Amino acid sequence: MTGPGTNGAQPTNASLQTVQESMLDGLGQLASYFGFSKVMGQLYGALLLSKSPLSLDDLVELLDISKASVSMNLRTLEHMGMVRQVWVRGGGGRRKFYEAETDFWQIISNVLSGREMRDVERAITVMDDDIERLRSAIPSMTEAERQQAQLYIDRIISVRDLFRFAQTLITGILTRTDASDS
Amino acid sequence: MTGPGTNGAQPTNASLQTVQESMLDGLGQLASYFGFSKVMGQLYGALLLSKSPLSLDDLVELLDISKASVSMNLRTLEHMGMVRQVWVRGGGGRRKFYEAETDFWQIISNVLSGREMRDVERAITVMDDDIERLRSAIPSMTEAERQQAQLYIDRIISVRDLFRFAQTLITGILTRTDASDS
Repeated sequence: MTGPGTNGAQPTNASLQTVQESMLDGLGQLASYFGFSKVMGQLYGALLLSKSPLSLDDLVELLDISKASVSMNLRTLEHMGMVRQVWVRGGGGRRKFYEAETDFWQIISNVLSGREMRDVERAITVMDDDIERLRSAIPSMTEAERQQAQLYIDRIISVRDLFRFAQTLITGILTRTDASDS
Repeated sequence: MTGPGTNGAQPTNASLQTVQESMLDGLGQLASYFGFSKVMGQLYGALLLSKSPLSLDDLVELLDISKASVSMNLRTLEHMGMVRQVWVRGGGGRRKFYEAETDFWQIISNVLSGREMRDVERAITVMDDDIERLRSAIPSMTEAERQQAQLYIDRIISVRDLFRFAQTLITGILTRTDASDS
């Protein structure tokens, strides 16, 4: 029986090894590109290329990074819906393993509707507040300050409109994802 | 005459100061969020909120960071088409100033058609190569390795297809930008 374990983690064949390294490397770079940790990308890659779920120890051995770092980054991946816990019986008890979510639309939908959407909304709120603050301060300003306030308002409005467009775009992608689910 | 200079950089009014700080802070965070340096976001914010072009010294004073860092990050911003050099006569010679590009569609188009598009294309090429490498190695593999290679191929194809979708999305945005230019 081929249960989950160290078997799937480290390939013996040279081509399999090269490709695994290439994917882990690429996904690590992609993760840091989007402001996440490199380890998150590598962990997701390791699970994505494994035929069976992997344990914490498998991942520590494969990636050669500390248990604390693997554990912390796995939690973040779980929270983002990119990795799931799987409990498997064996060796006299239940052991915890991890597997990758392979439905990318589901992942994109999770990330966009969580972090990205919240950040875009927060940015719009901050800019709306800034505009409001300037408008209510204008009556007590000198003429030179008023001109500067008006410039600030105009420029901030144009940035805010860009964020509103991003919001529309994200909502559009989320709607598309919901549609493909059903 | 109000020429370019230190006048526009540091506002005297409290509301103007608060809003300027809020925008510089927000754009700094946004920049690091997308994997650029925080200073790039702050520099762009400072120029965006200035009625006239600012000099290197104005920016050093306003942001309280080293001249070397301001200079390096300004070059990157120029390269991305987010900031332009402006030469102004005065004080017995020509001095170099900087102003922000305020056409955001132009900026997005520059960034997407440059860094993003290149990175997406490179990722697709790497994955195509990985798939090809596995396919040609399969004949010399054991049965267990073949199964693993097939899993790798399937998973890599699904990631590559996601990148192809991103490529289509970027091309779509670039086309939209071109249309709004004309």
